[in-house]
Amino acid sequence: MSEKSLPNVIVIGAGGVGVITAVSLCHRGRSHVSLVVRSDYEHVKEHGYSISSCDYGQLMGWKPHNLVKSVEGASNDGKFYDFVVVTTKNIPDGPVGSTVPEVIRPVIESNHRLNSSRQTNVLLVQNGLDIEKDIHKAYDSHDYNLVVLSGIQLIGSTKIGKGVIEQVGKDHLSVGPFDPKDDRAIAAAYVFIDLYNNEGHNRVTFDSEVRYARWRKLMYNAVINTTTALVGMDVPRCLQFGVDKVGTEENIFRPGMREIIAIAASEGITLNEKDLDFFCNISKDLMFKPSMCVDFLNGQLMELETILGNPLRIAKKNGVSTPVLFMLYHLLYMVQNKLKESKGLLKFDEKKARIVE
Amino acid sequence: MSEKSLPNVIVIGAGGVGVITAVSLCHRGRSHVSLVVRSDYEHVKEHGYSISSCDYGQLMGWKPHNLVKSVEGASNDGKFYDFVVVTTKNIPDGPVGSTVPEVIRPVIESNHRLNSSRQTNVLLVQNGLDIEKDIHKAYDSHDYNLVVLSGIQLIGSTKIGKGVIEQVGKDHLSVGPFDPKDDRAIAAAYVFIDLYNNEGHNRVTFDSEVRYARWRKLMYNAVINTTTALVGMDVPRCLQFGVDKVGTEENIFRPGMREIIAIAASEGITLNEKDLDFFCNISKDLMFKPSMCVDFLNGQLMELETILGNPLRIAKKNGVSTPVLFMLYHLLYMVQNKLKESKGLLKFDEKKARIVE
Repeated sequence: MSEKSLPNVIVIGAGGVGVITAVSLCHRGRSHVSLVVRSDYEHVKEHGYSISSCDYGQLMGWKPHNLVKSVEGASNDGKFYDFVVVTTKNIPDGPVGSTVPEVIRPVIESNHRLNSSRQTNVLLVQNGLDIEKDIHKAYDSHDYNLVVLSGIQLIGSTKIGKGVIEQVGKDHLSVGPFDPKDDRAIAAAYVFIDLYNNEGHNRVTFDSEVRYARWRKLMYNAVINTTTALVGMDVPRCLQFGVDKVGTEENIFRPGMREIIAIAASEGITLNEKDLDFFCNISKDLMFKPSMCVDFLNGQLMELETILGNPLRIAKKNGVSTPVLFMLYHLLYMVQNKLKESKGLLKFDEKKARIVE
Repeated sequence: MSEKSLPNVIVIGAGGVGVITAVSLCHRGRSHVSLVVRSDYEHVKEHGYSISSCDYGQLMGWKPHNLVKSVEGASNDGKFYDFVVVTTKNIPDGPVGSTVPEVIRPVIESNHRLNSSRQTNVLLVQNGLDIEKDIHKAYDSHDYNLVVLSGIQLIGSTKIGKGVIEQVGKDHLSVGPFDPKDDRAIAAAYVFIDLYNNEGHNRVTFDSEVRYARWRKLMYNAVINTTTALVGMDVPRCLQFGVDKVGTEENIFRPGMREIIAIAASEGITLNEKDLDFFCNISKDLMFKPSMCVDFLNGQLMELETILGNPLRIAKKNGVSTPVLFMLYHLLYMVQNKLKESKGLLKFDEKKARIVE
């Protein structure tokens, strides 16, 4: 196949996840892959990536087909991007320019200008609930001929230095339509799976019940991820450091997960009570700091709203009682604002003891 | 009066509070004052204290009558200490040797040896609930001829350097018997008040309802002090950084204080609902980090058990529902253990993901 006939994929977000996503697509060889690399651009342009991957081995000087410095830059090169893969954090309460709808805007608009009858598929490889709604709010699906896909990834991959990626946990990506009745989205998901699937290296599956999978993942993320962020410790310490060594599991983790089960049930999704044991047990021996904890310790904004704020809005709407999650949310909301202040995104006047509007 | 006829007072804890306590007693001149100074001993012995006090003005090279390096040392100088004033933090879950009963042991035992028929009065100028019980557990009141008094102090005083004390908030000490029916304790409280009272400088009052005052103070400390420690921020930021700027007050502070009111009620103490407004309002404009927040930020153990653990044990015994305080406690318990690990008081084996017993 010539390059011209291949679908164009742009991967936005060149962290541990984004780079392995680009590697997987390139390895398969059925798409032309552009990777947006911001801070490491000059380094990677000259030296390529050094990748140590449990899925693909040692890759020295690795580059995707196309290296771009910004989404804006990619939008000016005349390509129609069939798949826009977003692997950044999703922080709707962060700076306006870095919310997902704004980050992808240049390619969405250039696609629209280049060919308004060709379909643009946005794949959100991100945590949390209701993340597709902000995209639909920003772009009329019909007008922009837009399909939004969900990607839920299990992977252990980290950028450990400039242009250096270490993948220690195998990649399992599950792709599906946010709207299970959207035939175009279902078809697009299968197309992407074919572009991504590398037999014997990674694992990629079709997910017909994205919302179920996202709610299930929230049992861990809305409860365990959030708790570790609040106290700034890995999961086993949170468990062992609890009251009588059982307080964290019995009085935070399990009741919090039961609240997620109850909220999901309020919108007709039945989670499995047995997963309480599953999530508690995988936590006990895995010396691991979840993403929000890592972000907090690094002074970065946390994915608080997509992981905890959105589920709680549904709980409120449906009248579900959520005492544990509610406290975690209110406490983390303060911490998020503290992080915003430290990043200059919010100003507090100590003389007036008020936020500066 | 000659020194011999004056009662002996030993002040244990030479922080901002302890030093001003010693200054007040010396200023009055009706007692012979020993101050236990540990880390600053050599400096203070040579240079005395530099004190800037809103109650007593500038004091250069100030020294108490007797400067001692340790409680042990004081116990060897042949004096009977009529009043043992404890101004240290009260951390029953800290290292065994630094719990209050152990810290005072040398003088309690030497008093007992010197004269078992003379009364020893222990005054605890400390936060929290049920702090007298550990003293009674450690020393039989009859055998040791022991009276335990409560001191609740409002003061703004800080040790800002080696031998340097800055007092910016006036001293108001209220003294009373933990047991309101104990006539010996009532009498001892009045004696101490007379030793401490400096008309025109400080304020000292008799408190006939110590338990009420301690419960009332917990409305602030068990809720606001704890919350600020958990998120590591001063009180106005906690309020302003809450959800919609009202979430902290409406969903943590007020419900938490109502839980304190309910627990107090369960043991027959009626707190005033109006104090909810009082404590919320004093918080709004006072750029202030409460003690637990300061301790947390300095990597020091927090007074978690006397401020929050003990009230919650009463709640549990009496079947009072405390969802807010319960979450704060479980989260802070983890943080306390993190502080203990950082101080080497607890060991965690990362390979086994377990606390080392």
